[in-house]
Amino acid sequence: MSPADYRFMARALTLARRGLYSTDPNPRVGCVLVREGAIVGEGWHQRAGEPHAEVNALNAAGALAGGATVYVTLEPCCHHGRTPPCTDALLNAGISRLVAAMPDPNPQVAGRGLAILRDAGITVDCGLLEAEAQALNPGFIQRMTMNRPFVRVKLAMSLDGRTALASGESQWITGEAARQDVQRLRARSSAILSGIGTVLADDPALNVRLPAATRQPLRVILDSGLRTPPTAQILRLPGSVLIFTAVADSASQALLQAVGAEIIVVPRTGQGLDLRAVMAELARRECNEIHVESGPTLAGALLQAGLVDELVIYIAPLLLGDKARGLFQLPELARMNERTELEILDMRAVGKDWRVITRSVKI
Amino acid sequence: MSPADYRFMARALTLARRGLYSTDPNPRVGCVLVREGAIVGEGWHQRAGEPHAEVNALNAAGALAGGATVYVTLEPCCHHGRTPPCTDALLNAGISRLVAAMPDPNPQVAGRGLAILRDAGITVDCGLLEAEAQALNPGFIQRMTMNRPFVRVKLAMSLDGRTALASGESQWITGEAARQDVQRLRARSSAILSGIGTVLADDPALNVRLPAATRQPLRVILDSGLRTPPTAQILRLPGSVLIFTAVADSASQALLQAVGAEIIVVPRTGQGLDLRAVMAELARRECNEIHVESGPTLAGALLQAGLVDELVIYIAPLLLGDKARGLFQLPELARMNERTELEILDMRAVGKDWRVITRSVKI
Repeated sequence: MSPADYRFMARALTLARRGLYSTDPNPRVGCVLVREGAIVGEGWHQRAGEPHAEVNALNAAGALAGGATVYVTLEPCCHHGRTPPCTDALLNAGISRLVAAMPDPNPQVAGRGLAILRDAGITVDCGLLEAEAQALNPGFIQRMTMNRPFVRVKLAMSLDGRTALASGESQWITGEAARQDVQRLRARSSAILSGIGTVLADDPALNVRLPAATRQPLRVILDSGLRTPPTAQILRLPGSVLIFTAVADSASQALLQAVGAEIIVVPRTGQGLDLRAVMAELARRECNEIHVESGPTLAGALLQAGLVDELVIYIAPLLLGDKARGLFQLPELARMNERTELEILDMRAVGKDWRVITRSVKI
Repeated sequence: MSPADYRFMARALTLARRGLYSTDPNPRVGCVLVREGAIVGEGWHQRAGEPHAEVNALNAAGALAGGATVYVTLEPCCHHGRTPPCTDALLNAGISRLVAAMPDPNPQVAGRGLAILRDAGITVDCGLLEAEAQALNPGFIQRMTMNRPFVRVKLAMSLDGRTALASGESQWITGEAARQDVQRLRARSSAILSGIGTVLADDPALNVRLPAATRQPLRVILDSGLRTPPTAQILRLPGSVLIFTAVADSASQALLQAVGAEIIVVPRTGQGLDLRAVMAELARRECNEIHVESGPTLAGALLQAGLVDELVIYIAPLLLGDKARGLFQLPELARMNERTELEILDMRAVGKDWRVITRSVKI
């Protein structure tokens, strides 16, 4: 790969990011067409059902696409989904070379798109800036390969690790800049998930309040006893609401259904709902990234179930003391080696607070 | 001030830092002599009782000191302390200009050194890189101006704000690089302070294990009930040990004195010892910086007494859960606005852990 190859793929990644809030449940993909060292067409996937990045770039290039090198952040599709296969469009345009950042994790594609192009005589390379391309679509990749969504748990804490006063009061630990940053995390998610405890204590909106976002993620409440009040704010705002419960109480269900909620009964395990069953259902509904904002009970349960893929913790420069509430309700550890090890990917200032991102929490 | 002035003062600050582990109870001071744009002599204060930075620089310059500009990180002394006044030495050498980073906070000097030089016809400037010079000697400045030491509380925690398991086990939350960093904090301190709880639970050495450090800070234990075992490791290692207590139990005192400890009785206030009385006594003994390594009880008491000047928190990438111990034992807050606000001065990676430095915790 040449320096120019890196440069054009970096541009394709930048284009792909423009779809961060809108492509769901499709992946974010960007594409650049280059002839004689110059970009002749650019495109990105904007919305499911609309053209893929490659087609948008081909359309932008028009007749200049013939003989071009195509840089695309994900292997072109070769199947009929909501739109025709991109491999056909690329072959029809007469491109000479294709560079993909990564293969499509979709089992319906998984290298077959690249093989079709290669068999047609096109020079095909794959793997350029692959890690950056994977970072664009952690949820899509995990859903395609593991049949479950990517779960991102967001928490806000004081510097001494407290997320709320003993009374439950938690507004506001972090500042305005951190709360705006959370809006961006919500906007990129397929669903925003919380527990009944948070609904009853805070009556949160759990919606996206960003001018740049046109889509409201699905709101999901885990409510084993079906205690969600039909007057809850989440039920009054635009967007779909899904309530997972363990009780088949038709009267309560009817009340919530009457205000627009969908109720799904899943089994109980231990203290609460079967979280793996919840995630399987969300994957079935094509949810890629799940954004969790919850109290210590649900956060601890997700951690114990091995379902936390990424933790995003905002640290506010203040102290609340040891009577205030912790982040994760977990069983007491007998030995230090029973602890949960994390990898810190990023730590940076966000306004007057600090944000930590950690990866794949496995216990 | 010219760019050259900044450059030479920056050099003087670098020289001053060489005394970080050794000048105690004196301040760290560096000095550079410049003639015609070239450094002709450098010096720094190395150890109390030995020559001051100015005298070392004058000696290095020899006859070249005549007509030189002197850059010094602290106003020259004008009183007879352990050594003669530096103002005399500078006048004898025939310097032409003096640039000081800050006035000496010692009430015996406090601008009089600069006045003497100015009255003798020397051009005198003061205040160049003053914040950097103050940062070299937070303890000396606070002791001189407020008659109490600068208190730095070091804590190590998991990302969810826990410093030990419920059982008390805390070895090791952080990695080797963070523990080495703590050695550097210990080495720059006049005293290392802990509570009897930590002594009984961990039997810590509380000493400096750095090849670069030749001095062992005073070890101080707050032990209201005089329960320190005469066999404790702190009493078996080289260096002085001071035990503050509230009980005048002559038998226990005699046992501890027999193994080299000095016992000081101070009043009780509330749950423990009068921490202001402890700090006043440490200031009287010329302690500049106090390094605290303790459990949540003493850390919380210092915070409540308004005696924490700097917090240094090492954050390890792991989770211990809400049954593990917190950092600060504090009364329950009724409202969010009762919280302790901090200012984060620095956050950086130290090995696989992260270090946060916060300033002046006032409640």
